Amino acid sequence: MYYPEPISKLIDSFTKLPGIGPKTAVRLAFFVLNMKEDDVIEFAQALVNAKRKLTHCSICGHITDQEPCAICQDTSRDESVICVVQDSKDVIAMEKMKEFNGKYHVLNGAISPMDGIGPEDINVPSLLNRLKDEQVKELILATNPNIEGEATAMYISRLVKPSGIKTTRIAHGLPVGGDLEYADEVTLSKALEGRREL
Amino acid sequence: MYYPEPISKLIDSFTKLPGIGPKTAVRLAFFVLNMKEDDVIEFAQALVNAKRKLTHCSICGHITDQEPCAICQDTSRDESVICVVQDSKDVIAMEKMKEFNGKYHVLNGAISPMDGIGPEDINVPSLLNRLKDEQVKELILATNPNIEGEATAMYISRLVKPSGIKTTRIAHGLPVGGDLEYADEVTLSKALEGRREL
Repeated sequence: MYYPEPISKLIDSFTKLPGIGPKTAVRLAFFVLNMKEDDVIEFAQALVNAKRKLTHCSICGHITDQEPCAICQDTSRDESVICVVQDSKDVIAMEKMKEFNGKYHVLNGAISPMDGIGPEDINVPSLLNRLKDEQVKELILATNPNIEGEATAMYISRLVKPSGIKTTRIAHGLPVGGDLEYADEVTLSKALEGRREL
Repeated sequence: MYYPEPISKLIDSFTKLPGIGPKTAVRLAFFVLNMKEDDVIEFAQALVNAKRKLTHCSICGHITDQEPCAICQDTSRDESVICVVQDSKDVIAMEKMKEFNGKYHVLNGAISPMDGIGPEDINVPSLLNRLKDEQVKELILATNPNIEGEATAMYISRLVKPSGIKTTRIAHGLPVGGDLEYADEVTLSKALEGRREL
């Protein structure tokens, strides 16, 4: 035991976080020792509160501290469009854009047979219920543009097709500010395929 | 406000830590949401305990949860040698080496006129008291090999000289596993200067 127990416990806790190795954990723990006591207590409370007060919205699956979440409660939003995303962080990314005024549905995962995650492990049944009850005209599938995200989008679009609701997929192509020279073949092929008349 | 309040507070707390930017803070905060509640509570307690239970040892200045610290209490250690370091982390580095069996003195800083840190701001007076009272034969100055550390070592060695206690400085030279080709001139010159007969 090189460290006094209180600090070695804190180092252990920091090490459990993603991307934080033993050396960074030591640095962070010593930084905490030099922080103001009020800030440390605030940090500790924030940890416990985030864990205890946040749940997933029973309607859309987004993280929230109220039930239903602020977006589902917001009557000024367009209920006829639902944007399906994999993660709560994706909702934040969409909201930052400030151009989408519909509702969301957070799957909290994507179909990934390699990791043993099937359609029943993600938040799909509640989506189907929403499509039955609500006046939804369009379902925008905004899952990630990788194998799992594509598979999930395909799966949902097939499930929804019989109901006649319009199902769209966000566009693939070159990112803005990107460089044609360095784009991979698949992205370039998708960009060409999705070309539009000016 | 894109995030529910409990998580935005946690993100703020993470952002205050060194080396953690806004994106990493979001990632860590969402990771905490998926942690087991017990682990989160343990983390929160570790934060508060580390801040509240740890103090600096009144003898050597090392961080400790007992008074005096475990090293100062240990009667099996050689009291005639004191190793002076800048920081508690340096004590840990020395202890991991498992070759030094003397005592320590932690300055908790280094003289740095640029940052307004003078000799009176670091833990020197208590070192002088220890030299008066204890049977110290050698003082090893193991401050960092940079401008501040060298200045601090020089300052302490001049203060101690009149008392006749042997004062030594740890060796400068090429790090083990290093490469002569990539060594800077100052290090190489120190390595040459400190050469020893085989």
